[in-house]
Amino acid sequence: MKYPTHLLKLIESFKMLPGVGNKSAERFAFHLINQPPEQLSLLANIIHETPLRLKTCPVCGCLIGEASCPFCEASRSTLGVICIVASARDTFAIEATHEYRGLYHVLGGLLSPMEGIGPEKLTIESLKQRIRSLQIKEVVIALDSTLEGDATALYLKQELADLSVQMTRLAFGLPMGSALDYVDGGTLARAFSGRSRF
Amino acid sequence: MKYPTHLLKLIESFKMLPGVGNKSAERFAFHLINQPPEQLSLLANIIHETPLRLKTCPVCGCLIGEASCPFCEASRSTLGVICIVASARDTFAIEATHEYRGLYHVLGGLLSPMEGIGPEKLTIESLKQRIRSLQIKEVVIALDSTLEGDATALYLKQELADLSVQMTRLAFGLPMGSALDYVDGGTLARAFSGRSRF
Repeated sequence: MKYPTHLLKLIESFKMLPGVGNKSAERFAFHLINQPPEQLSLLANIIHETPLRLKTCPVCGCLIGEASCPFCEASRSTLGVICIVASARDTFAIEATHEYRGLYHVLGGLLSPMEGIGPEKLTIESLKQRIRSLQIKEVVIALDSTLEGDATALYLKQELADLSVQMTRLAFGLPMGSALDYVDGGTLARAFSGRSRF
Repeated sequence: MKYPTHLLKLIESFKMLPGVGNKSAERFAFHLINQPPEQLSLLANIIHETPLRLKTCPVCGCLIGEASCPFCEASRSTLGVICIVASARDTFAIEATHEYRGLYHVLGGLLSPMEGIGPEKLTIESLKQRIRSLQIKEVVIALDSTLEGDATALYLKQELADLSVQMTRLAFGLPMGSALDYVDGGTLARAFSGRSRF
């Protein structure tokens, strides 16, 4: 006996979510089947309305609701600092630290020849224009500490070299609460070379 | 900076799925945001249509599509065997073994005083009626090997005692491919007491 067609559709739909395989998708589907129809309609509406209710700011690339972009407020541009992130999601993680109050620029990804992402797919040209027009003094590179993140950071350094801005990158070192014997060699080496007076 | 309102709604919606916490719900939500609107409409429709397209058979309680219940076919009732499962999902797992071709009866849960599930919440009365009217000879109890499953099995044994049907329960023992030193004591004890001539 195979699953009814609609159940198969439901399972396939859930498998498009990241990290969801067949077993999890089945659990989700059977859970939904036992929910009242109103609950399902509500969920369906929320998903359906997402493209209407969540937009990308055409200037900085951040994710915004229906109001104007809170990341592009005038108070942020007076600091003369712009933080470069790979995706709109990263801005929320940085905001949660309360360490930064400047502007953001969402690149839209990281350079990755393997996945066919070249510089033309990233918003580097609009970044240059913003740096010039906003009289930016410091560019903070807040990209992943991966091969792709490093490559993208180096590429940006070259591209922005003639704009006379100070470029900085997030510090590398021990994550908070980590035990030395569990930290990988690469992290430990970066933490050593970046040690500071205590 | 907090997430836009609609993003919070989307995250909250995903958190109703089993085993999905805040982090996974965020991942799902950000994944959906990057999907084309048609894809989201499709997902929304599939969820919305679920109560229309998937039904519960009023006789056996199995999950069915829009056609008549394949679990209630006449060929199945001629065997005179009925298999009792806790939820509609279990029937598909049993069908996949190709070991069984008889009828099913979905109880709708297991007895659990902790969760307030008493005998009146299970479909025991309709089970008795079906056993009588279909002239069932064997009742196979295919319930979980848990405290609740054991309690429900014992309760059924009492309830069906005066119907003169043979009652059987799925075998307990080593799961396939298991190493003895990884098997828990309870399982090993049941496997020992249930050992068969070899």
